[in-house]
Amino acid sequence: MVDKIYGIGVGPGDTDLLTLKAVNVIQNADTIFVPISKEGKASVAYDIIKTIIPENKKVVELLFPMSKDVEFLQKHWNNAAEKVMEENGTVAVVTIGDATLYSTFSYVWHIFNENNIDVEIINGISSPFAAAGVLNIPLVEGDEKLAILPQGKDLEKYLEEFDTLIVMKTNDLEEKLKNLKDKKDNYLVGVVNRVTSKNQKTALGKIDEIDFEPFKDYLSLAIIKKLK
Amino acid sequence: MVDKIYGIGVGPGDTDLLTLKAVNVIQNADTIFVPISKEGKASVAYDIIKTIIPENKKVVELLFPMSKDVEFLQKHWNNAAEKVMEENGTVAVVTIGDATLYSTFSYVWHIFNENNIDVEIINGISSPFAAAGVLNIPLVEGDEKLAILPQGKDLEKYLEEFDTLIVMKTNDLEEKLKNLKDKKDNYLVGVVNRVTSKNQKTALGKIDEIDFEPFKDYLSLAIIKKLK
Repeated sequence: MVDKIYGIGVGPGDTDLLTLKAVNVIQNADTIFVPISKEGKASVAYDIIKTIIPENKKVVELLFPMSKDVEFLQKHWNNAAEKVMEENGTVAVVTIGDATLYSTFSYVWHIFNENNIDVEIINGISSPFAAAGVLNIPLVEGDEKLAILPQGKDLEKYLEEFDTLIVMKTNDLEEKLKNLKDKKDNYLVGVVNRVTSKNQKTALGKIDEIDFEPFKDYLSLAIIKKLK
Repeated sequence: MVDKIYGIGVGPGDTDLLTLKAVNVIQNADTIFVPISKEGKASVAYDIIKTIIPENKKVVELLFPMSKDVEFLQKHWNNAAEKVMEENGTVAVVTIGDATLYSTFSYVWHIFNENNIDVEIINGISSPFAAAGVLNIPLVEGDEKLAILPQGKDLEKYLEEFDTLIVMKTNDLEEKLKNLKDKKDNYLVGVVNRVTSKNQKTALGKIDEIDFEPFKDYLSLAIIKKLK
């Protein structure tokens, strides 16, 4: 039976964005669990930490498939949680970005809490912050309001009301922004794919200046700022 | 004249939440600038990094006073920016939390950009994420929406519309939440002061279960989740 589970955010891509605490806990855990979305597919989180893992450390994959079938997902989340809880000693479960924001870790976190397991979160750098850094623009200042909308849910409404919007997953963002018609020039848009990784792509400009094609990959996000 | 300016988020309080990159840049910078809010007052950011600063490193204070007088503030921000830009070599300007979210760094960042100075942001752990970690609750999952409201601006409206709200500065949050009357039990509230520091205080519960008194200090924030 597991003693303690660390839910560790490993940041968006660059190994140097790991915190001192994350490195320390990963290096001292008895077992490290890394998420994969498909059998045989590489783990993005594992790629971020592989250079800091000591030799002979036990690393186990956890399958978190992508699906809209809630029952199917719940079955896999239960399986993943069981696998972690059956392990001995202290374990590190890693997740890209931060464990508290749209993370794979949250799917098993609930199950650990229901089982009264000792869980400690080690925060990581979240991709919207890394994106703002790379684009060299602040997210919010002073008394500005910020909203984070997965898949740009209710985008048009909140574009009016908020100073800054973050859109997680930008597959259909272009289409949504085109609906703004004559209001399109009121916004500055930054889009980033796989921020701080070797394959990072970025674009920054008015809506009509941006080629959205490279940002239809699922590890993309947008920062939309109302111009003043 | 300065060669390069690093805007470095040093996280919310615990030195171990610095990233590897932040430690490396701080230790190798020619000069480290630390913000203070008043002459003679300790710098929270400096307290976070002091144990990792090499001996004999040049550390300079930058005064960012608190005021509602925009002209007075602008004068101090200009002075602070001048002081940094006049320095030789590479400099680190540190800020608590992350440099992109309501940071003191953003006040001088604009001035550096206007002067075409080479700026690089090194992200830090932002306090809302650390707070969620410490409270052992996810901020958002799946397709949930999140808003960050400084001083709880438009709180009542967005409590209805968002799954999770983060309120930065909670001085008058209690009063605002009391206005919810019979809807008060629809929410779970977590409040945290000086998260991850030695003086951290936390509370988690329904609105009527929380004593808001200890959270009227300016380094407090709240996470409000709609119960389902």
